[in-house]
Amino acid sequence: MTRIAIDAMGGDHAPFEIVAGAVWAAAEYGVALELVGKRDLIEDCLEKIQKDGFMSPCGKIGRNKRVRVDVKSLDIKITHASEIIEMGEAPGQAIRKKKNSSIVLTVNSVATGSSDALVAAGSTGAAMAASLFGLGRIPGIDRPAIAVTLPTMKKPVVVIDGGANSNCTPQMLKQFAIMGRIFSKNVLDIENPKTGVLNIGEEAGKGNELAQSVYNILEEEKEKYNFMGNIEGRELFLNHCDIVVCDGFVGNVVLKVTEGTASMLFKMIKSEFKSDFLGMLIGLLAKPFMKRIYEKINYEEFGGMLLLGVKGITVISHGRSKAYAIKNAVRVAKEAVETQVNRKIAESIETN
Amino acid sequence: MTRIAIDAMGGDHAPFEIVAGAVWAAAEYGVALELVGKRDLIEDCLEKIQKDGFMSPCGKIGRNKRVRVDVKSLDIKITHASEIIEMGEAPGQAIRKKKNSSIVLTVNSVATGSSDALVAAGSTGAAMAASLFGLGRIPGIDRPAIAVTLPTMKKPVVVIDGGANSNCTPQMLKQFAIMGRIFSKNVLDIENPKTGVLNIGEEAGKGNELAQSVYNILEEEKEKYNFMGNIEGRELFLNHCDIVVCDGFVGNVVLKVTEGTASMLFKMIKSEFKSDFLGMLIGLLAKPFMKRIYEKINYEEFGGMLLLGVKGITVISHGRSKAYAIKNAVRVAKEAVETQVNRKIAESIETN
Repeated sequence: MTRIAIDAMGGDHAPFEIVAGAVWAAAEYGVALELVGKRDLIEDCLEKIQKDGFMSPCGKIGRNKRVRVDVKSLDIKITHASEIIEMGEAPGQAIRKKKNSSIVLTVNSVATGSSDALVAAGSTGAAMAASLFGLGRIPGIDRPAIAVTLPTMKKPVVVIDGGANSNCTPQMLKQFAIMGRIFSKNVLDIENPKTGVLNIGEEAGKGNELAQSVYNILEEEKEKYNFMGNIEGRELFLNHCDIVVCDGFVGNVVLKVTEGTASMLFKMIKSEFKSDFLGMLIGLLAKPFMKRIYEKINYEEFGGMLLLGVKGITVISHGRSKAYAIKNAVRVAKEAVETQVNRKIAESIETN
Repeated sequence: MTRIAIDAMGGDHAPFEIVAGAVWAAAEYGVALELVGKRDLIEDCLEKIQKDGFMSPCGKIGRNKRVRVDVKSLDIKITHASEIIEMGEAPGQAIRKKKNSSIVLTVNSVATGSSDALVAAGSTGAAMAASLFGLGRIPGIDRPAIAVTLPTMKKPVVVIDGGANSNCTPQMLKQFAIMGRIFSKNVLDIENPKTGVLNIGEEAGKGNELAQSVYNILEEEKEKYNFMGNIEGRELFLNHCDIVVCDGFVGNVVLKVTEGTASMLFKMIKSEFKSDFLGMLIGLLAKPFMKRIYEKINYEEFGGMLLLGVKGITVISHGRSKAYAIKNAVRVAKEAVETQVNRKIAESIETN
């Protein structure tokens, strides 16, 4: 049975929502768990869940439902971690200093083979650094990167890097393109994914130095990458490309601006419908339709982002993740174990 | 009477929609025009508009209406330009080579005092380069920048730079903060605007080298800038800040991702309502509400973005602008003449 290690102490709603999401996933997807964190807190959470269950939207927005999980029927291992890395700490220093932190021990459990993959919703920087240090880089990959799957009208588009590396070289972005390609093929089942460079104009020669250099590098091996040239922010959602490469600063901004815009629009719609009585009535009728759209784009459905380029599987979840998002993150981790995307990256780099 | 010069040949829908938007604005806002481009084409457009009017959404999305303008009653000067700078051309080279291009002559008309401000919907790079070369920099400003006004739930937020400079130094971003502040005060009437740095985390020390350096520079004069620290993409729309500084590559990506996300969501909503008969009915009822939201965020309402830091007023419009967007761009230009934002930037830099 696949075992997923979870940093039970990471994220805004840790430990309860994290533990709840993990056991929910274990029951639903048939995986074993390794919960890493303060043993007494984790045990309290498990006991509470066994007794009362927990409230969660169950994938539908709107009203919470009570979710019940028979915790005792699950294969759960608890690994005690006495320390926690906080959001503000410098990741590199923190993981060296806090060897008994939950994130370091979560990574260790994958490094030693006790678990098959890990999920972390705490500091992204710490999860990155711990994974890099604990699992090691795939030879030939200079820096691991986060693959973000953005929803579009048709199939999702992979933005890589989604925030692991703020300062990038053209060579790094070339490697992101290779990793994104393997992810797209193996995880999203896209046969010959199309690759683009995120840029601020269509024509070659547009954009900053990084985008220009990467354009030239990918253009040289156009067929290998199924390279489509530059992609503007507006076209990201139009399925011109399956993979879009950029540095982690820009990628993270894209991810969050998408989230922010969608959230603002839903708020605007809500407030517009509330402007008069007729509006409230129509708004009520329109609600199920709006819900379906919200579900299509809600980050909680995606659960987590894969860190590509390390020798092991790390799924990074949103810091705001509650049980439902964590459940989906565990699903992403399980799928990554099955598709072995990081092993395939290693093989592909070797034969390149 | 304020005279606005318009590059009649720039933009995807030039010359007809550009000329139509310009005369519409002239009639509605009481400004004089200087239309720059191929004389015969411009005259044809004016004749056609005088005779038949033109079709435009009039600020409401949905059905076009026929707009009628009595062209003969307006103060319109035509300046012939024999050349056009195309979208793909390298801006710097193009403006030096094509001295009789419409954009170069449009800028000239402001430089010589024939017009008070200009509107351009063609190549942003060419409009930038021509303005920089033709109008000159404000002393103390290293590079002009584009101020983008993004809609939010409450008041708009200014993102600067919106795409003028792909590669920036920390010093440039400091100047963007100064210019954005004067824009926000004078054009948007915000008394003591709050400034933030666009970044991928809240804490100091997050992000790429540029963001880190700018953070430190603004933090040193925290009160002067009413500096709020780092702002993430998600928070852009939450009015934590009135001005957000970033390099032009990131700013342009933000602008276009916002546009792309909103456009995708509206398409999703449309297609969701079309899924069954009941949906179509509810969709029909909901349409006026959705329209009002669309109008709040539609770039056509904003019309154009001001180029700050040059000795003159340049309004850059979306390449896809049609008459309605151009009409609003002329309004932005007229307001900039009235508020004299670039003169105030010059004064502020002198006293700094």
